[in-house]
Amino acid sequence: MSSHRVNVGIVGASGYSGEELLNILLRHPHVDLTVITSRQYAGKSIHEIFPRFSHYPANRGLEFCEPDPEKFGPKADCFFLALPHGVAHEVAPSLLEQGRKVIDLSADFRLDDAATYRDFYGHEHPAPHLLEQAVYGLPEIHEPSIRKANLVASPGCYPTSILLPTLPLVEQGTIRPESIIADSLSGVSGAGRNASIPYLYVECNESLRPYGIPRHRHLAEIEQELTKAAQKKVCTQFSPHLVPVNRGILTTIYAAPVNEIRSGGDVSDLNRTLHSIYDEYYSECPFVRVLGESGLPDTKNVTGTNVIEFGWRVDPRTGRLILMSAEDNLVKGAAGQAVQSFNLMYEFSETDGLI
Amino acid sequence: MSSHRVNVGIVGASGYSGEELLNILLRHPHVDLTVITSRQYAGKSIHEIFPRFSHYPANRGLEFCEPDPEKFGPKADCFFLALPHGVAHEVAPSLLEQGRKVIDLSADFRLDDAATYRDFYGHEHPAPHLLEQAVYGLPEIHEPSIRKANLVASPGCYPTSILLPTLPLVEQGTIRPESIIADSLSGVSGAGRNASIPYLYVECNESLRPYGIPRHRHLAEIEQELTKAAQKKVCTQFSPHLVPVNRGILTTIYAAPVNEIRSGGDVSDLNRTLHSIYDEYYSECPFVRVLGESGLPDTKNVTGTNVIEFGWRVDPRTGRLILMSAEDNLVKGAAGQAVQSFNLMYEFSETDGLI
Amino acid sequence: MSSHRVNVGIVGASGYSGEELLNILLRHPHVDLTVITSRQYAGKSIHEIFPRFSHYPANRGLEFCEPDPEKFGPKADCFFLALPHGVAHEVAPSLLEQGRKVIDLSADFRLDDAATYRDFYGHEHPAPHLLEQAVYGLPEIHEPSIRKANLVASPGCYPTSILLPTLPLVEQGTIRPESIIADSLSGVSGAGRNASIPYLYVECNESLRPYGIPRHRHLAEIEQELTKAAQKKVCTQFSPHLVPVNRGILTTIYAAPVNEIRSGGDVSDLNRTLHSIYDEYYSECPFVRVLGESGLPDTKNVTGTNVIEFGWRVDPRTGRLILMSAEDNLVKGAAGQAVQSFNLMYEFSETDGLI
Amino acid sequence: MSSHRVNVGIVGASGYSGEELLNILLRHPHVDLTVITSRQYAGKSIHEIFPRFSHYPANRGLEFCEPDPEKFGPKADCFFLALPHGVAHEVAPSLLEQGRKVIDLSADFRLDDAATYRDFYGHEHPAPHLLEQAVYGLPEIHEPSIRKANLVASPGCYPTSILLPTLPLVEQGTIRPESIIADSLSGVSGAGRNASIPYLYVECNESLRPYGIPRHRHLAEIEQELTKAAQKKVCTQFSPHLVPVNRGILTTIYAAPVNEIRSGGDVSDLNRTLHSIYDEYYSECPFVRVLGESGLPDTKNVTGTNVIEFGWRVDPRTGRLILMSAEDNLVKGAAGQAVQSFNLMYEFSETDGLI
Repeated sequence: MSSHRVNVGIVGASGYSGEELLNILLRHPHVDLTVITSRQYAGKSIHEIFPRFSHYPANRGLEFCEPDPEKFGPKADCFFLALPHGVAHEVAPSLLEQGRKVIDLSADFRLDDAATYRDFYGHEHPAPHLLEQAVYGLPEIHEPSIRKANLVASPGCYPTSILLPTLPLVEQGTIRPESIIADSLSGVSGAGRNASIPYLYVECNESLRPYGIPRHRHLAEIEQELTKAAQKKVCTQFSPHLVPVNRGILTTIYAAPVNEIRSGGDVSDLNRTLHSIYDEYYSECPFVRVLGESGLPDTKNVTGTNVIEFGWRVDPRTGRLILMSAEDNLVKGAAGQAVQSFNLMYEFSETDGLI
Repeated sequence: MSSHRVNVGIVGASGYSGEELLNILLRHPHVDLTVITSRQYAGKSIHEIFPRFSHYPANRGLEFCEPDPEKFGPKADCFFLALPHGVAHEVAPSLLEQGRKVIDLSADFRLDDAATYRDFYGHEHPAPHLLEQAVYGLPEIHEPSIRKANLVASPGCYPTSILLPTLPLVEQGTIRPESIIADSLSGVSGAGRNASIPYLYVECNESLRPYGIPRHRHLAEIEQELTKAAQKKVCTQFSPHLVPVNRGILTTIYAAPVNEIRSGGDVSDLNRTLHSIYDEYYSECPFVRVLGESGLPDTKNVTGTNVIEFGWRVDPRTGRLILMSAEDNLVKGAAGQAVQSFNLMYEFSETDGLI
Repeated sequence: MSSHRVNVGIVGASGYSGEELLNILLRHPHVDLTVITSRQYAGKSIHEIFPRFSHYPANRGLEFCEPDPEKFGPKADCFFLALPHGVAHEVAPSLLEQGRKVIDLSADFRLDDAATYRDFYGHEHPAPHLLEQAVYGLPEIHEPSIRKANLVASPGCYPTSILLPTLPLVEQGTIRPESIIADSLSGVSGAGRNASIPYLYVECNESLRPYGIPRHRHLAEIEQELTKAAQKKVCTQFSPHLVPVNRGILTTIYAAPVNEIRSGGDVSDLNRTLHSIYDEYYSECPFVRVLGESGLPDTKNVTGTNVIEFGWRVDPRTGRLILMSAEDNLVKGAAGQAVQSFNLMYEFSETDGLI
Repeated sequence: MSSHRVNVGIVGASGYSGEELLNILLRHPHVDLTVITSRQYAGKSIHEIFPRFSHYPANRGLEFCEPDPEKFGPKADCFFLALPHGVAHEVAPSLLEQGRKVIDLSADFRLDDAATYRDFYGHEHPAPHLLEQAVYGLPEIHEPSIRKANLVASPGCYPTSILLPTLPLVEQGTIRPESIIADSLSGVSGAGRNASIPYLYVECNESLRPYGIPRHRHLAEIEQELTKAAQKKVCTQFSPHLVPVNRGILTTIYAAPVNEIRSGGDVSDLNRTLHSIYDEYYSECPFVRVLGESGLPDTKNVTGTNVIEFGWRVDPRTGRLILMSAEDNLVKGAAGQAVQSFNLMYEFSETDGLI
């Protein structure tokens, strides 16, 4: 395992994902944070904007700068982009041309197919050649590609919570992919640090509400990855809901097993199969906690960590498999997962900075 | 419409449903509250236990008494039972024999079939003859029976949120009942005012968690009512989740339309059908707010009211209908709905005390 | 008591206070709501903007209109102004000239003295002649003037929570007014429905913070009223804090009794004196709940009601009196108190629409 | 600085403070956790009870054991006691006799004087000889004694938030100690993981309430430490409040400067004095963040960290100094501060395991 140090930059460090990247990278044993950008806070120091990091020894002197990649590009080897969707496009090409590695937390490079991008995002992709180059940064699934990547498109928070429990089962032919229904609950930090009435405290507290049903943008990457695993075109149902917590995504997934469940024996068989498959895929993965057929996830068991946990129930009455996962949307769903990819790209221990 | 007054009692007035009954009945224009029972608070006055009602003119002098039906039975004409499941059994028979009307908020009399009761509740029903007599108190569906009932079994909070959007569609053959998946989120008051670690503030705040999956007890009454509507045995999926709000249930329901959805034209047709069916069933119902195919429910629009609101989306990609409902679990899901039945039983306006 | 009906308008009905006014006035037995204004929502109906009121029979057909007093002035007899501070100035004069009564919920007319206004608000008062005419709308204290007023300046939420417990004691010479320290906690609705980062859910949840210390604008009216009661210039300490609840103000007040407390006997004497004074001032007041020397307030006992509750402790160790009050900032602290004044102005029962 | 490893035990590891100790010590670079006790969970492993720690490499194999000090005493060098008040008495003497070091998080050994203990706790202290031996574990103030201690009484959460801002000013004669009024807000974790109705989610959410006024038990240690600093008997005012956050204490402190404040010049002078004093006391302290006369604390800037931050305002109108502090009640107010003392006792870096 490598033990050298890497100069790192965070582009767009003032939102919630950027702040969580700061939180992780300021304590990462192999990182020297040399660039942090924020149009709004240019010229200010970390501790003026985020007092909670002021006692981290590593942050001395670092100031936010303007997000001009020509200027800040030379100052680091690897950049995390924590920009709004549609802005990473404008920054990544310059950095890649300068020979930098880029880990993008937005949706800009997650889709392989420019047509699907247009379909879901409503405009042409401005840099379609980069879609080929980009690696979908789900470390538990795409580790070898991530290790070699120069451009990682780190997955969305919802897709992570859905794909990690389902991909192995789809790939192994255990569930019928077209039967998947993913019903997700997200904390409000998922909406970003944007001044907008629907996300005011009073509007969210004591409120439960669905949104983006039935065609949230994250659906595109969910279907893309399920399609790869199924080796046939997959169309799924995904329903996000906003609930009053700061952090956390809880996803409940309904799926039909390929082998019908008609008896208690079928239930036992499927439970064994699931244990076996998850063991094969995840037993070496430090951030996947498989809770099995009797455990139940709870976001409070994962907030502040890079862990996703999930359990399941086989229902002999309806014949369905119900998978339930919990993760921190800002860590495993964003900043933590991005750093996990970074660790792979630089041959550090996968858990560096994350435990 | 009648304008006489009725002497009313609340048996078990110290829990959250009992407190909400107090809140409603103390202001009901045709109610004289003459009995409130609580083993724990016997001898205390309303305002000692619930200071927030101390300025309601109607509560002067009323004290909690022991829950002995022989003693309090003669003091009122109609009793609301807000007791833990399994306790209403012990109180209702005596009151009915004394010629009183009983509205039970527990699950004790909701099932028609003693065998189903044993199956879901794990013991023999102690008064199976009353199951026949009891009317399932969903006023929008069973109004005529409720008007004539002496024993009303008021529906559970989850079933109300699921049945009102689905029953008309099942009865009219619009959706396939076996395809129904109901995914519900509930506020913590649903767990009752019971000192238990999982419901402590610190355990619930910043926590999202499933529970009771796949066989929550409310499933029994959900399936019973869907079975009646479908005129064939229905088995459904129901997944409750606990989320950090005081009040509110949000339910997202997935169902397959009987006529397949393959085009935008099919979507429009189904939307029209749904409007037409809901109009037929609910246009005269003061507490059902149909939001249609573009509205989205939010619990904060219904908390503190007896309203259930729901909207839907037809998804041409997956062919599914997605229904989404919101209600206050303590009002439409408990105390308010019980008072709505009371209004029907005594020929008051359905909205008396509820608007 | 009068039983006629009054045509009423709400100017600025889209903020939290305006919404609460709607909630109350739509159910007020003597009110016909004929005007609701909102620049932003002009042309929309109540139930489009506030679905929770859609089942109130009284709201049929009413649409928001532009806030032009020349146009809407003729349509109602009395107007509630729920406008941002500094805007009521522009609307009230026209309405008064048209012979309307005005109840203003902003701070624009609360101060008697234009110089104090300039001192605290940083600019000249634009209509100083109206300051003389305006009555400070604290019904428990200024009932006779309110009954005759054409322009009522309804008190701020913080001042209400501080003045009701202290004014009688200052007026009766029981406590030294210059010793008063008021430490207040407010729910986030106090900040209004304004899209601003500090009031986002994620910024407020799990956050406790002071602000506006030591010279919050509400201090001006607090000192004005204490000065009148003391008949000498009073300067006080007031410290607001923002805490994560939707509604509610809890205020803890420290004061030195005029007669020193040196023994248990002194404590008993002061307790008796306080009971006697509060009884004299408030025994006929339906919205003041005096909890005495052993009770403790809790905002959850008053939210959604027009009640203020307060208790106290005399501390023989430090010699101080500690008063603690709780109210709903949007009801007793804003809309409810304004309707209470309205009831007095039109000779309705003080509790009409409020219980 | 030392770099050896120490075998450590946590006695009472199932409450909130114990869980936070686990969180810190499982990642402490010089700690081998060898003992964790819990009567209730004896025989279970850490990750069964606290799934969130299951991915920490250090926790493999460790099981909770019965809290019998004769048995577990030999297995570690240093023990943290996170027991309810009144229970540490029974465990500490045996451990000390076995030659172990003890860091107690309860109030059992915080008072120097057995008579004060009896006065505040209502019974005789069972081991008064240990009161002499115990060191009050406020590292910023008592570092030299802590370094040599075998028994550290780690301060209460409220006292920490009050003493760190005030002790230097009292000791330097800048404020009059008898004028101190400390008004504190605490998150609900301060009440411990105890099943009790007042701490249920529904009872705490949307609730603000004072309690323990005017004579909370923490007052005893607050006055003890202020008395030492003032070198005369000090009596203070302390008012705790319960507010709906999981973690965090915000304290607002009112005090009269010894030199009267009559002008803007006096304000500037006092500001300078405060900067100078705090600089002298805390400039080398990694966990004290002095925000000065323009900063304002916010618990969300300190939760999850061992930092206390505080700022102040000098009010020329009232002549008072207002100090405002924020800390995490479970970290700086409990587990973190205890580990800080541990680091001093074993000559580790003060920040080991805490940043």
